[in-house]
Amino acid sequence: MPAHTGLTAPMFGSPDVMEIFSGAGLIRRMLDVEGALARAEARCGVIPAAAAATIADVCAQPEDGGRQPVIDAEALAQGAIGVGNLAIPFVKQLTAAVAARDETAGRYVHWGATSQDILDTALVLQLVDALRIQDGRLTRLADDCAGLARRHRDTVMVARTWQQHALPTTFGLKAAGWLDALRRDLMRLQDTRGRVRVLQFGGAAGTLASLGPTAPDVAACLAGELALAPPALPWHTHRDRLVEVASTLGMLCGTLGKMARDISLMMQTEVAEVAEPAGAGRGGSSTMPHKRNPVGCAAVLAIATRVPALVSTMFSAMPQEHERALGGWQAEWDTLPDIVASTAGALRQMGEIIAGLEVDAARMRANLDLTGGLILGEAYMLALGQRLGRLPAHHLVECASRDAVAANVTLLDALRKRLAADPALAGLLDDADLEQLADPTRYTGQAARYVDAVLTEWQAARGAQDGAP
Amino acid sequence: MPAHTGLTAPMFGSPDVMEIFSGAGLIRRMLDVEGALARAEARCGVIPAAAAATIADVCAQPEDGGRQPVIDAEALAQGAIGVGNLAIPFVKQLTAAVAARDETAGRYVHWGATSQDILDTALVLQLVDALRIQDGRLTRLADDCAGLARRHRDTVMVARTWQQHALPTTFGLKAAGWLDALRRDLMRLQDTRGRVRVLQFGGAAGTLASLGPTAPDVAACLAGELALAPPALPWHTHRDRLVEVASTLGMLCGTLGKMARDISLMMQTEVAEVAEPAGAGRGGSSTMPHKRNPVGCAAVLAIATRVPALVSTMFSAMPQEHERALGGWQAEWDTLPDIVASTAGALRQMGEIIAGLEVDAARMRANLDLTGGLILGEAYMLALGQRLGRLPAHHLVECASRDAVAANVTLLDALRKRLAADPALAGLLDDADLEQLADPTRYTGQAARYVDAVLTEWQAARGAQDGAP
Amino acid sequence: MPAHTGLTAPMFGSPDVMEIFSGAGLIRRMLDVEGALARAEARCGVIPAAAAATIADVCAQPEDGGRQPVIDAEALAQGAIGVGNLAIPFVKQLTAAVAARDETAGRYVHWGATSQDILDTALVLQLVDALRIQDGRLTRLADDCAGLARRHRDTVMVARTWQQHALPTTFGLKAAGWLDALRRDLMRLQDTRGRVRVLQFGGAAGTLASLGPTAPDVAACLAGELALAPPALPWHTHRDRLVEVASTLGMLCGTLGKMARDISLMMQTEVAEVAEPAGAGRGGSSTMPHKRNPVGCAAVLAIATRVPALVSTMFSAMPQEHERALGGWQAEWDTLPDIVASTAGALRQMGEIIAGLEVDAARMRANLDLTGGLILGEAYMLALGQRLGRLPAHHLVECASRDAVAANVTLLDALRKRLAADPALAGLLDDADLEQLADPTRYTGQAARYVDAVLTEWQAARGAQDGAP
Amino acid sequence: MPAHTGLTAPMFGSPDVMEIFSGAGLIRRMLDVEGALARAEARCGVIPAAAAATIADVCAQPEDGGRQPVIDAEALAQGAIGVGNLAIPFVKQLTAAVAARDETAGRYVHWGATSQDILDTALVLQLVDALRIQDGRLTRLADDCAGLARRHRDTVMVARTWQQHALPTTFGLKAAGWLDALRRDLMRLQDTRGRVRVLQFGGAAGTLASLGPTAPDVAACLAGELALAPPALPWHTHRDRLVEVASTLGMLCGTLGKMARDISLMMQTEVAEVAEPAGAGRGGSSTMPHKRNPVGCAAVLAIATRVPALVSTMFSAMPQEHERALGGWQAEWDTLPDIVASTAGALRQMGEIIAGLEVDAARMRANLDLTGGLILGEAYMLALGQRLGRLPAHHLVECASRDAVAANVTLLDALRKRLAADPALAGLLDDADLEQLADPTRYTGQAARYVDAVLTEWQAARGAQDGAP
Repeated sequence: MPAHTGLTAPMFGSPDVMEIFSGAGLIRRMLDVEGALARAEARCGVIPAAAAATIADVCAQPEDGGRQPVIDAEALAQGAIGVGNLAIPFVKQLTAAVAARDETAGRYVHWGATSQDILDTALVLQLVDALRIQDGRLTRLADDCAGLARRHRDTVMVARTWQQHALPTTFGLKAAGWLDALRRDLMRLQDTRGRVRVLQFGGAAGTLASLGPTAPDVAACLAGELALAPPALPWHTHRDRLVEVASTLGMLCGTLGKMARDISLMMQTEVAEVAEPAGAGRGGSSTMPHKRNPVGCAAVLAIATRVPALVSTMFSAMPQEHERALGGWQAEWDTLPDIVASTAGALRQMGEIIAGLEVDAARMRANLDLTGGLILGEAYMLALGQRLGRLPAHHLVECASRDAVAANVTLLDALRKRLAADPALAGLLDDADLEQLADPTRYTGQAARYVDAVLTEWQAARGAQDGAP
Repeated sequence: MPAHTGLTAPMFGSPDVMEIFSGAGLIRRMLDVEGALARAEARCGVIPAAAAATIADVCAQPEDGGRQPVIDAEALAQGAIGVGNLAIPFVKQLTAAVAARDETAGRYVHWGATSQDILDTALVLQLVDALRIQDGRLTRLADDCAGLARRHRDTVMVARTWQQHALPTTFGLKAAGWLDALRRDLMRLQDTRGRVRVLQFGGAAGTLASLGPTAPDVAACLAGELALAPPALPWHTHRDRLVEVASTLGMLCGTLGKMARDISLMMQTEVAEVAEPAGAGRGGSSTMPHKRNPVGCAAVLAIATRVPALVSTMFSAMPQEHERALGGWQAEWDTLPDIVASTAGALRQMGEIIAGLEVDAARMRANLDLTGGLILGEAYMLALGQRLGRLPAHHLVECASRDAVAANVTLLDALRKRLAADPALAGLLDDADLEQLADPTRYTGQAARYVDAVLTEWQAARGAQDGAP
Repeated sequence: MPAHTGLTAPMFGSPDVMEIFSGAGLIRRMLDVEGALARAEARCGVIPAAAAATIADVCAQPEDGGRQPVIDAEALAQGAIGVGNLAIPFVKQLTAAVAARDETAGRYVHWGATSQDILDTALVLQLVDALRIQDGRLTRLADDCAGLARRHRDTVMVARTWQQHALPTTFGLKAAGWLDALRRDLMRLQDTRGRVRVLQFGGAAGTLASLGPTAPDVAACLAGELALAPPALPWHTHRDRLVEVASTLGMLCGTLGKMARDISLMMQTEVAEVAEPAGAGRGGSSTMPHKRNPVGCAAVLAIATRVPALVSTMFSAMPQEHERALGGWQAEWDTLPDIVASTAGALRQMGEIIAGLEVDAARMRANLDLTGGLILGEAYMLALGQRLGRLPAHHLVECASRDAVAANVTLLDALRKRLAADPALAGLLDDADLEQLADPTRYTGQAARYVDAVLTEWQAARGAQDGAP
Repeated sequence: MPAHTGLTAPMFGSPDVMEIFSGAGLIRRMLDVEGALARAEARCGVIPAAAAATIADVCAQPEDGGRQPVIDAEALAQGAIGVGNLAIPFVKQLTAAVAARDETAGRYVHWGATSQDILDTALVLQLVDALRIQDGRLTRLADDCAGLARRHRDTVMVARTWQQHALPTTFGLKAAGWLDALRRDLMRLQDTRGRVRVLQFGGAAGTLASLGPTAPDVAACLAGELALAPPALPWHTHRDRLVEVASTLGMLCGTLGKMARDISLMMQTEVAEVAEPAGAGRGGSSTMPHKRNPVGCAAVLAIATRVPALVSTMFSAMPQEHERALGGWQAEWDTLPDIVASTAGALRQMGEIIAGLEVDAARMRANLDLTGGLILGEAYMLALGQRLGRLPAHHLVECASRDAVAANVTLLDALRKRLAADPALAGLLDDADLEQLADPTRYTGQAARYVDAVLTEWQAARGAQDGAP
């Protein structure tokens, strides 16, 4: 059955992660879980070894030898509507396929498990694979931001607040801000990955009564087979681990959205300080041949607009009823994969943007002069404040700024005039002082120091990571 | 490229509506728009009639005669990632196909339009088709609720507030409440359908400068070709009509969610007043053979959990920049189709539930007695209140209720005892009065009258609808 | 008890609407409902006329004559926590106050009603008052946009797509786009106002059994007293009318957010085409004396960021249980007032911005030249397309645009060179044609016509409104 | 100015936490920040020690000695509307108050800081205080759940899936599930508390240029004064730490919502397994004297309905522009305090519910028998499955279950009949086996073991916590 919207869904999802969450990707992992379950139960003496071998074999090679695939995805989708989830028709099909090889083995398929055990555990396996991809992509993106921060440590540019020119800063500091946030996102992602690697295995109502006293051994074996941790108890209706995945990725999308916002604003025709990398057909317009559109930023901003609401669905679905839920669980199915695939897509887009970002340092410098020095008002104000106190200095610079705008002169000239006109102010600052104050490269404060600190932290984080098993 | 999640996306979407929003469904409507554009421009003398005929022909029969399909969906999806939307590679492919037949005609494909014109107008055509399906489905569902309300006009049952027994009511009144809400939903849906049937046609930046002075005529012709209204001006970044579709459907999902909530609570093992219709494999459980699960309600509740957040994305995306947006427009693409398909799915599920709902009137009557008459406290209180005043009557019934619980007798008996014990109360109500008050079927208030009123309103709405063109 | 956040909540709410939803505003309307109920019941012979007169008198003048206020708001808030809503302690306090004047009258307070009847009806009264304020404010804002559209019908400026220069347009067309959206918002607001004016009156479980056969008469009388419509049946758990209020206002916030987005982008230091009105202290910065910050836009954008999520809460809360709900109803209490007050605040802010908007037409014109004529690429392309076909023309202009950027000349010069260099192209356009094509004021397409159409529609809507009763 | 909704906002917020986020609570912490800033700057030689002493003194005792309060909250609120935030008028008022004591000191108020530095740092101080309260409350709630789990380790009850009877379980296991989730919530809360304790101090545009070379020392001193960590760089537009607070609390609300969902379902009249504690006026109804309403659960569910959307606002607001934002920052102001206060309110409500929860073990046991033994279908199926294979056993029990329902006998009797009727099945299970299988207390699987594991983990977590500094 086709994706519902446009030609892919989500539009800007990352293809590799979408593959993990595709029908084929889900079926493969459900087969992995059923195969591992059979092996675990055989090892614990719950089902016959021969039966387990057959089941595991069918699950491992569901399509080999020119045979029909074990699982008919079309029929699965049809069947799921009636019974309410995919695992029920899946188990039926798998049982039939196993029984076709060995009738006895067919009796032991899915032994003791419930449909949610299979779906949740398969989901965890999908998440583990998807988050591994995201981890690598995020690390590379952070590395590239570190490169930008390092190269542009002293590239002076306008700092903007309220979307107005405010003060000088450096492009390195802006990139360091992105890097610092990405580093926190990576730490959260790694913590979350560790916490979500948990087996779901509780049987029909979370007591695993179906397996009698062998239950703990089977659970431990199964967890081992799948390289997952066994939880203290089943979590069929306690979904906080999944919600944590959603919110960790949501924060990452927020960081990427902030980067896309900054970059697209800097790409405006009037600003023109950076540009997304050019590429075959990238950002062209069907009617305006001269444009370079921020198409990557648009995709990232679209994702940063969609994901917060998807995350809220995961929160809204948490109050799930009793031992297995009615509606809340089902609400996760379309939501979490969309979050994961969209975040991966945003990472990929931003990865390409940052890897090839064109930075126009000359234009950055030029834009600093657009206000005739008004951007250095604070520098003057503080220099004067040391002599006059903050409020009078504030007042003086405010007046001179108005003069400058009215007479269309620089703030430097307007201030000179005010200082000269008022005997009480004469001599407060001499001409050399004023000239120095008018140089924006001298008023970037702690920018370089912050860049260095962030780069050092990132180095440390990278080192810890590389040293990790 | 496969759908991202499970085997279909959204899981509980309605297949017919998902087809409309599939890749094939979108491409077909984009071809319809391009074909109509060519015809309109030929009629207004903007492009040669022969070129228009070729273009329209290619658009009308994109796959006939064993030829390759004009549009390669795979390549479209690939191309869209780089340039940011589907229409740009679509126009390229279409132009190539037309030029292959007639090079001159190829020059006139997509003449004067912008990619968003095509995508938005195709979206409107999708919405018109999808909302027509929803209208029919909603009308049938309301009819079935009307049937329930009529048949159970006098079927007495427990009214519950705070999920506690409160008073007697009728199942007819509950069904009438659903019907009344569905009638309002239908009215809103019809209003919204009328308002969203609007052409998008503004050229690259909303001035239609590309068509010179013929622009108004072409726009009028094109709107006529597609049976859409021409708007006062293009709406590339004013998206309220689409958001209205989303919120109208969101309200409908809320109503359906309320119905699913009621029904699933009534289906609880301990309550057992209604059941979803049985069907082949419907609601079975892989491990609990005796259960009839509310699988339809679960699907509807899942949709009612997801859709509010999707609707909020449509609202969040509204502040779109200038003449065409960066991120906001793109955020709609995966969101609105999901809302429409999910709502259609919820309608289909609830349609099946209501059409086959099993109602156990005897159990409804029996549940009224579960509290030993406490449920009629208000009836006693009001009868006593007319003689004692509200607060003392309230106090008396409160005490008798506590007696009844403590002594495990009926409220009737407890009240008799209290009335007998206190000379000041003796004779306030005689035994016949008390017996009558103990009959829940006599204390359903305006329930029947409300049912009749709602049925009459529905009849009127249906009549107006049938009389409509 | 204090507001939870900062000093007012919501920060940017409109004070007049916040007053309506304040404790005092709610209590006043609850008293109105109780007073009207007593009068209606007396007219229908349900309670004694003398009792009704006393109740109505207490409700009408709850604080006069130096007496203590009838309702102690502090105690109300305390009491509400324990019992779950404000109406229960409210009725207790009111009953005590009435009984203090006349014990018999005390017995008839709140006769036959349930707490939700009072709270919901008081809410409807609050909404009616608040929406009336919004209607006026929205009409004035639209009028001011109409003024802008008229005055700037021919003020040429840059149209921007993807935040890049795209084509010429007019500021009048931008303002007309805002106006057209506001007109639709106003229509929706008026429809919604009409539909939400509905009495809630169903007694404890929606059957109004408490009033026996007089129930319909009392309901009709009560509705008349309060100038509300009597619904076909109570709507304790069918909340779509309230959700419609939320979504109608949400759409309005989206329109206002779009306006704020446009204006704040145009206010950027590099763009400087418009400015929010200056005012005492408006938009000052504590450290940057020269800045004029878009403080009004920031408030509107903050509201447009918050309201979508608040609206989604109203949708999420819809699936309410049975006859009166557990959690869903209560979730509305903090949400709907916030939406209404915030929207009113956004309207007020945008009203001030538009009423005093400073428009710099010269800067708008100047910005059109920033790209050396690249912005007129489409004009050249279409003129050439009529002779060469769309794709070759597209290609030619694309090449010339690249030449222009590379050689830092205007597109006009680059094109001249290309046309001269290629004999096949020679004579396609003469110099006079090229000069004309280079004038942006000649390439605004239908802008003026669209402005006129929108102004005409607004006039018609205004006329209909003034003619309304 | 009054709170906007009802009498308090949010309605179910916790008063102690609402106090922290009240106007007074915010002003007190802003004064703390300004006082600490003055002291830090004096220690670093940036401002005169005498001035700092005066500033710190005014900030420390803003209302002592019968003087007027330094800060006029009314005027603050008024002023904030015009300039866009509270800190600007706050600094003006504070400066005036300091200058009134010592004109020179007045010049050094707020030296080098920007308004967002003060507001963000004050917010962090509010969060630190509020999260400490939540930590204590959450620990006590988890302790009480541990008590329930321990006491009811072997209290057998119905496990419900899809809101249908599924299998036996224990109430201890349900409580252990809550406890396990609360333990994870507590861990996340403690991690988050550690990460959010970060100073904001970047000056006008995040470079701290205003302080020249002393900036790092002042920042370190200021952080020390306030017991906060100094970040690697300012975070004016990187808000992930705050979003993490929101999402951590959102997950906690989800857990509490799940508990409230379970408890309110168990409190239904037909189920009656638990009850919220009774209290003065708790859960009474104005018209139904006999009811015990789940008022605490309603409040928690209302909060669990509202908070997901509020959390999504925090995510939506993340893409903040450049060095200081336009709209996104401002959207946080009403949102985060609401989340924190509402979560604290939900914790308080659930704390009271669990501390006094009335558990009716007898009713739990009785409800297990409602289905005539159908609930033990799995037990029979597995016992038979060991002899027949899973599918045939499934089929046999499915048939017997239908027999039991049709003939209104127990599943035990129906199975006996089926086993007796079919010679192939005779002797599969003898009568003693069948009797044992019919005992639900023998089919609780790993419930007790899970409870023990969770209690052990909680003990360990508590130990680690008590041992912490």
